[in-house]
Amino acid sequence: MTVFQRNEGAVQSTVPYLSVAGLRDLVGTVGLPTMLCALADRMSTAFTHWDAYAKSPRVTHETASGFVELMPVADAQTFAFKYVNCHPGNTALGVPTVAGFGAMMDLETGRPIFLSEMTVLTAMRTAATSLMAARALARQDARTLAIIGNGAQCEFQALAFQHGLGIDALRLYDIDPAATAKVQRNLAWTGLDITACTSAAEAAEGADIVTTCTADLRNARVLTDAMVVPGMHLNALGGDCAGKTELDPAILHRAEIFVEFPPQTRVEGEIQQLAPDHPVTELCDVLRGAHQGRGSAEDITLFDSVGFAVEDLIALSYCRDMAMETGLCGDLDLLVSPNDCRDLFGVLAS
Amino acid sequence: MTVFQRNEGAVQSTVPYLSVAGLRDLVGTVGLPTMLCALADRMSTAFTHWDAYAKSPRVTHETASGFVELMPVADAQTFAFKYVNCHPGNTALGVPTVAGFGAMMDLETGRPIFLSEMTVLTAMRTAATSLMAARALARQDARTLAIIGNGAQCEFQALAFQHGLGIDALRLYDIDPAATAKVQRNLAWTGLDITACTSAAEAAEGADIVTTCTADLRNARVLTDAMVVPGMHLNALGGDCAGKTELDPAILHRAEIFVEFPPQTRVEGEIQQLAPDHPVTELCDVLRGAHQGRGSAEDITLFDSVGFAVEDLIALSYCRDMAMETGLCGDLDLLVSPNDCRDLFGVLAS
Repeated sequence: MTVFQRNEGAVQSTVPYLSVAGLRDLVGTVGLPTMLCALADRMSTAFTHWDAYAKSPRVTHETASGFVELMPVADAQTFAFKYVNCHPGNTALGVPTVAGFGAMMDLETGRPIFLSEMTVLTAMRTAATSLMAARALARQDARTLAIIGNGAQCEFQALAFQHGLGIDALRLYDIDPAATAKVQRNLAWTGLDITACTSAAEAAEGADIVTTCTADLRNARVLTDAMVVPGMHLNALGGDCAGKTELDPAILHRAEIFVEFPPQTRVEGEIQQLAPDHPVTELCDVLRGAHQGRGSAEDITLFDSVGFAVEDLIALSYCRDMAMETGLCGDLDLLVSPNDCRDLFGVLAS
Repeated sequence: MTVFQRNEGAVQSTVPYLSVAGLRDLVGTVGLPTMLCALADRMSTAFTHWDAYAKSPRVTHETASGFVELMPVADAQTFAFKYVNCHPGNTALGVPTVAGFGAMMDLETGRPIFLSEMTVLTAMRTAATSLMAARALARQDARTLAIIGNGAQCEFQALAFQHGLGIDALRLYDIDPAATAKVQRNLAWTGLDITACTSAAEAAEGADIVTTCTADLRNARVLTDAMVVPGMHLNALGGDCAGKTELDPAILHRAEIFVEFPPQTRVEGEIQQLAPDHPVTELCDVLRGAHQGRGSAEDITLFDSVGFAVEDLIALSYCRDMAMETGLCGDLDLLVSPNDCRDLFGVLAS
């Protein structure tokens, strides 16, 4: 990588870049469980400094077939954004529903310092966020995890909870048995005791933690009130945009609800089904010790997770560090060299 | 480039990418004057369909040393954004003040379809926008162009006006004679009759068009009232953020003022010095024939240009077409292949 000196260090003249293949190699080198746990650790630290992040509204553009959005965020040193789309009809075209990429910029100079694929990375950061929340909210003796919805997110959740929380039994359910079979194949090597179930109720039975990560774009009731018993931790990921929820509202009235960022979760999360003043606790308050989290072994805790830009910044920052350390970064020729800052025309001539 | 079929055509599994070197090669192949004129043509067409663009506010994040921003925009087929910063103190660090890059997404599927450097490209689109406006507003017999501020934008302006408008004489002034000397060197081959001047007043004398593109981040008076004579077209580029202007307010009261997008120009342009209801004309109205533009050979016309996201979308779209046509695109491995849309985990294994 070409570098040039400036007063206090080196400024890159290329942008470090993590491709899909680069992330695959990074995971192969570091190990996915290790990365998910390290990400959850960084995330926990970030949430204890929650007020240090400048949180901007997303920029969303909707069309008939889906939506695209930019998610910007900043801390004192860095500005970052993620581009991501959601096009449910893509599956019928043989195109993934979601594609994402993101970038980080150095705020002192405004220079881009990292560009990365964020389709797989978003799945990793979502699982790490779930792990961070479950460490704070699930019962210490939780060993059995149910996952309802066995799509793109499922394996990441299972590995994060196995290695970061000590889960040893996994109960799976999906309306499409082929999705469940895919997860069984993908996780056969893990040592997890995996049970394929024929209903959501069967999957939830005996589970200490229930993760819902279904894709249906409507107000569904994937989990009904009768499936939820005292002591459970519910990790609800699939309710993540307006008009899309997974939980029976009756559950929300029995559970203590924890959220990432109330202004966003009130619009996008499960709690869009509740009155706008229904009490919720910010996860950051639990992580910085201002709220106890789970009150007793009988409580039902719910992490109503919608995904927030701070988590993307942490994921980008972690991957940048790891990619630089392992040398798995490419270099993008996106920056003009500073031979003469006023001579852009000269760039074309050289 | 790997492609896979979908119903109505081909979807890329990589993202076409135009690097700084790629843009240099493209300019070398097509020719800068040709590209600037073609861009101005596309821009004119876009401005006649101005209402077809979804115009979002910029996302701006300010720090002590400058600001960074995202400029999103969409038409019916495409969502695009540009990242750009402005850090005036970078020059002292030997780092360019501005760095930009941008991306285009297909709205039907949400997939990224182009990523490009936009530091040089922004200079090109700004010159093309100036040319589009001057074609509509300057006197037909304009032959002499003055450029006050001989920095990064200067050569692009000169070439666009020479080839797109028939300018044959160029009068240059900068507070730093080295900047003027740089432009003289860079444009020595053009056949332009170039005069280096020792004051803004000397440069403006006898000019049919005066372009101001200075970098000073304050309310300056680069052009004073006495320098402006009937029949002139003023092309003011440097007043492009709050607190930064170039023209004596007295000029604004004598000129007919044309702007890109009033809500943005009222905040960022020269007209931030005027009452918020001071009459201005939208350039799109001139281009679609709803306003006559210049009324007489004695009028003073002013294009108060701040740069708008629609222009970036046009520039990206043009460069994508040209880069694909000439094969000067790279491919970025930023997209997950669609073998199994629900098997992101499998991406890491393959």
